[in-house]
Amino acid sequence: MTTAENPTARHLDSAARELMEEMSRWPIFDPHSHINPHRPAARNFDEVLGYHYYTELAHASGMPAEQVDPGLDPRSRALNLAERLDDLDNTVQYSWLLEIARTFHQFPHDRLNPRDVADLYDKALREGDAAGAAWDQRVWDQSNLEAVFLTNEFDDSLEGWDTSKYVPCLRTDDLVLKLHQPRVAERLRRATGEDVGDLEGLRKAVGILFERFTSKGARACAISLPPDFVPSPAAPRRAVTPVRRALRGLDLRRDEHAEIRATVFWMLAEHCAEFKIPFDLMIGPIRDVYPAGVAGGRDLFDRRVSLHDYRELFNHFASVVFPVSTLSPDAGAELVAYSWIFPNVMPMGHWWYSNIPAFIAADLKARIQALPKVKLLGYYSDAYKLEFILPKFNMYRRILAETLAEEAIGGRGWTTERALELAKLILIDNPRRVFGFEAQRGPALV
Amino acid sequence: MTTAENPTARHLDSAARELMEEMSRWPIFDPHSHINPHRPAARNFDEVLGYHYYTELAHASGMPAEQVDPGLDPRSRALNLAERLDDLDNTVQYSWLLEIARTFHQFPHDRLNPRDVADLYDKALREGDAAGAAWDQRVWDQSNLEAVFLTNEFDDSLEGWDTSKYVPCLRTDDLVLKLHQPRVAERLRRATGEDVGDLEGLRKAVGILFERFTSKGARACAISLPPDFVPSPAAPRRAVTPVRRALRGLDLRRDEHAEIRATVFWMLAEHCAEFKIPFDLMIGPIRDVYPAGVAGGRDLFDRRVSLHDYRELFNHFASVVFPVSTLSPDAGAELVAYSWIFPNVMPMGHWWYSNIPAFIAADLKARIQALPKVKLLGYYSDAYKLEFILPKFNMYRRILAETLAEEAIGGRGWTTERALELAKLILIDNPRRVFGFEAQRGPALV
Amino acid sequence: MTTAENPTARHLDSAARELMEEMSRWPIFDPHSHINPHRPAARNFDEVLGYHYYTELAHASGMPAEQVDPGLDPRSRALNLAERLDDLDNTVQYSWLLEIARTFHQFPHDRLNPRDVADLYDKALREGDAAGAAWDQRVWDQSNLEAVFLTNEFDDSLEGWDTSKYVPCLRTDDLVLKLHQPRVAERLRRATGEDVGDLEGLRKAVGILFERFTSKGARACAISLPPDFVPSPAAPRRAVTPVRRALRGLDLRRDEHAEIRATVFWMLAEHCAEFKIPFDLMIGPIRDVYPAGVAGGRDLFDRRVSLHDYRELFNHFASVVFPVSTLSPDAGAELVAYSWIFPNVMPMGHWWYSNIPAFIAADLKARIQALPKVKLLGYYSDAYKLEFILPKFNMYRRILAETLAEEAIGGRGWTTERALELAKLILIDNPRRVFGFEAQRGPALV
Repeated sequence: MTTAENPTARHLDSAARELMEEMSRWPIFDPHSHINPHRPAARNFDEVLGYHYYTELAHASGMPAEQVDPGLDPRSRALNLAERLDDLDNTVQYSWLLEIARTFHQFPHDRLNPRDVADLYDKALREGDAAGAAWDQRVWDQSNLEAVFLTNEFDDSLEGWDTSKYVPCLRTDDLVLKLHQPRVAERLRRATGEDVGDLEGLRKAVGILFERFTSKGARACAISLPPDFVPSPAAPRRAVTPVRRALRGLDLRRDEHAEIRATVFWMLAEHCAEFKIPFDLMIGPIRDVYPAGVAGGRDLFDRRVSLHDYRELFNHFASVVFPVSTLSPDAGAELVAYSWIFPNVMPMGHWWYSNIPAFIAADLKARIQALPKVKLLGYYSDAYKLEFILPKFNMYRRILAETLAEEAIGGRGWTTERALELAKLILIDNPRRVFGFEAQRGPALV
Repeated sequence: MTTAENPTARHLDSAARELMEEMSRWPIFDPHSHINPHRPAARNFDEVLGYHYYTELAHASGMPAEQVDPGLDPRSRALNLAERLDDLDNTVQYSWLLEIARTFHQFPHDRLNPRDVADLYDKALREGDAAGAAWDQRVWDQSNLEAVFLTNEFDDSLEGWDTSKYVPCLRTDDLVLKLHQPRVAERLRRATGEDVGDLEGLRKAVGILFERFTSKGARACAISLPPDFVPSPAAPRRAVTPVRRALRGLDLRRDEHAEIRATVFWMLAEHCAEFKIPFDLMIGPIRDVYPAGVAGGRDLFDRRVSLHDYRELFNHFASVVFPVSTLSPDAGAELVAYSWIFPNVMPMGHWWYSNIPAFIAADLKARIQALPKVKLLGYYSDAYKLEFILPKFNMYRRILAETLAEEAIGGRGWTTERALELAKLILIDNPRRVFGFEAQRGPALV
Repeated sequence: MTTAENPTARHLDSAARELMEEMSRWPIFDPHSHINPHRPAARNFDEVLGYHYYTELAHASGMPAEQVDPGLDPRSRALNLAERLDDLDNTVQYSWLLEIARTFHQFPHDRLNPRDVADLYDKALREGDAAGAAWDQRVWDQSNLEAVFLTNEFDDSLEGWDTSKYVPCLRTDDLVLKLHQPRVAERLRRATGEDVGDLEGLRKAVGILFERFTSKGARACAISLPPDFVPSPAAPRRAVTPVRRALRGLDLRRDEHAEIRATVFWMLAEHCAEFKIPFDLMIGPIRDVYPAGVAGGRDLFDRRVSLHDYRELFNHFASVVFPVSTLSPDAGAELVAYSWIFPNVMPMGHWWYSNIPAFIAADLKARIQALPKVKLLGYYSDAYKLEFILPKFNMYRRILAETLAEEAIGGRGWTTERALELAKLILIDNPRRVFGFEAQRGPALV
């Protein structure tokens, strides 16, 4: 797509515009998403409007949660939400929506009213497998996607899609945080064929998962962790009994829960070392802080969190790369310092509540000023539907263009070419290298 | 007043200037101040210079506290402080002072020397009730004020002024934090006519206060809370004894103090629900951190605070709107996230140590990018004298103009009209709606 | 040096450029460094490239620590590091290096390749005392240095250099944090000639140190403190036994360690009061968080820190000036508030992990907007070699020029002259006054 068509590039100054124009021609390498590889693009506009960013913002501005109940038919749900869009038409999230409508559905206006949404709903409807697959391909092509990382539950079969495009990633929240739930243990047994009943069985099962995932092309292990989680070195003897009790669904004391979490987490890091894949850490969320919220809009955080709690992990697993995202926007500066010292800590993307231009711009500027360029893992979409990848990346590219225009070209007299070299490293080369898509260069960590 | 006369608008770029020019014509709706409705504007220039911002900054730069002792005669106090103004002529607080002198007293210069202050003292002197009332009216008119919220102690009679202009607000710090002080219990008995001696008596008395305040036009309940305060659900049975002991002036254990605070606070929230008024939370101050300071200049904070401590409150009182201010500037990003998820949490103004352009601009940008526009409660003056409302609001309007010029007009291609719509929502429409000055629209929370 | 030669001034807008041009002519007053007065400038380019900023960034981007092992010969070490410079050529730290090469060694290019470093190594070699001394003088003159504060261990003899240029400063980390180490107690005995064995002996020894340091021209006492340190008022009776045990090298309980630290720290503050010198507090570092790092690149922090922990200190020692630096960038706003209230708290420089333009600019803007100008202690180099003082100060001057151009000239209509008055206060007059280089003016605190 040309920049003239790119609404995010309209108002940049000339140096930034030139950078943005060039970046718009590049492929997108997206190292973290929640795309469903069996249904990557939206089959209807409710799958766009149903993104939790819209439902939660609409709910937070007064819409009852029932109006976007999963039980409703999609068109009604979309139209209910459409009634509330005006209330959030100032937000950056709304701007993604508008860019989707304009880029993929030829929507010509600057604001979406309920009637527009009804039209878009009808226009965007893709019924049947063939129409769906064609649409997936069209969005993929128009977005110029190169690779999109997934979020796969440990018992995902990883079958039925091209894993060089939709790259598997082993998500491990359930194993670490919910091992005591009978359903999780049962899923683990079924996924591995092992009668997992104790610590050794658990270790064997985890090994089977890593074996399967990496053999199917997985390029990362990932987890999101609450702010009060402190990874501590495995103490297998101390963990034996709690892990056995957990796997048998017995009641656990608070300290036993902590022991189990730390033990399983440490075991995962050991497997990342053994299987030579990065371990994405997404630090901060507390689940279900607002239980009456809409689906996906119930989690928040406690800002009192520090990477100092992770020092033993970073020290112990010197051979494992930890791409780190932090949830609380004010924790971003600390991540710069930890990435500056630890070879295996890399700042990754701008996550969720931090994925707002004001926060991205501040974090990005500090990262570019303070960290070796080979360590900057630019951005990921975190998207659930393919359509969101382009507008989110364009938001980031625009901030990157402005930052480089100001810092590098304006501030240091760099040429446009040199600024683009850095941009390419941040957006493409570094993620490719760190996630094993090319021969190693620079920090041979994995 | 025209923009040409408005010193804060001189140096904006053209889009921002146009926005600022228009905003300067709007009325001011000020949802939080400490104005004394019986003496709203300053009767002499000491009442301007005596604002704690000046006395504390002068003291912090070396002036002995005695030089602004309340026992001194006002002219001497003003002249003492005038000697120190040079030391702080770089601050934004000084710029408010200059704007007051220029706007209300035709002061023509850019700096105030001690002789200027002597002249201003004489010129600004308003002796006698008639002169005072005329001056109040003139400042009100020239500032184009629409409504100014007060801070009323629970035993304020609320008599003797026009409550549609000076809107009562029930301030409840003493009830929550000082119930154990015999003087507070005594004031409560006198204010309610109840022989308050136990939890039930307390509940009855609080009901009487809410009844009286709302019947006299109060539109909010408000409280400032220390960073270590954690609101926890009422446990009436557990609170019975501590509350009775407190009301009888008996000694309390630390945990009893905490129990009483939580209980009274929860009771206030219950009354906000019942009487359908917002509960302004001002989170963060620790009183008397620097006891040797000047009056009003002794309080600070501990930055280790999180809204996560308020989750049970926000969940439990879904029908109560909580306009939230946080004191520590680095806590602003968390407030954005909580307002983004909780329908009843709204970010309100930029408070005290956060009321500095650098912090306002960062917070405002994030709020505008991330939050539904109907949730943005722009600004309040926190002023003690009427003269300060205009320069403080002009400071905010200027930052708002610059933010919208950059973000909305520059960044998204909005028209000036659309940017002004948003500005009006933030400055006027939302505060009017949330504090019950119009028919409900959007989030029908109260 | 003219601005035309100054690479940091090339791209400023015209008002900022004019300010920067003038500031470039001013002398540099540097109130904190680690310069060795016996060998102030680098004797070879390894002493430039060996700065921990380069070794740690190179290591953090993949270079094995062995490649900069202190045991290697300097030329090999420099060439090893040169191979990694490309990986960090985006950083502000790299820009200091380039400015050193261009300013002091006539290096003409914008990027340093390994061959350039080899040439620079040979060119920058200064063998023999006379060549070294001449080079020291040349860097001093070309940088237009006025005074450079040192970091002197308590047992430094303070002999052999001009203490009016290289100003002694008593660094006290070892006394407070390591008194229990037999080597420290032994050094203290040797330095003071006292048989220090108990609290009274310790007090006498500290008095001797302050006497010696101040008589040799020391102008400050300084310490860096971990985030969990809480200064509490001395409780001599309680400290008697732990201090005696520490001085005898006996084992200590955790609470005894805390008691000793607090006691010695309080004793130092008492001596600062008695000897009328400022006590520089550098708050935040945790030592050896990454033990496998390169020398100087092993320390980090925990961002959960608050100045509220220092309230008793600031209150008790009203006559002692505390120039405060905080390590965690997000703690900067709190320092503004504490400096705004406490007469004896002054924000000093931008330290280490906070010494990045993005963080400096945010902190500086808030300080200039909110704090009396007489309290702003602009910048210090923290340098180990003389060559770094100029590029670091130029980085700061540039940010100061941009901030004043935007805030003061653009935002308030100040003249260039008035903006320069403020700049001079921040850069030169305030540090001179606070550290006793002129007759007192303004806050007569020391």
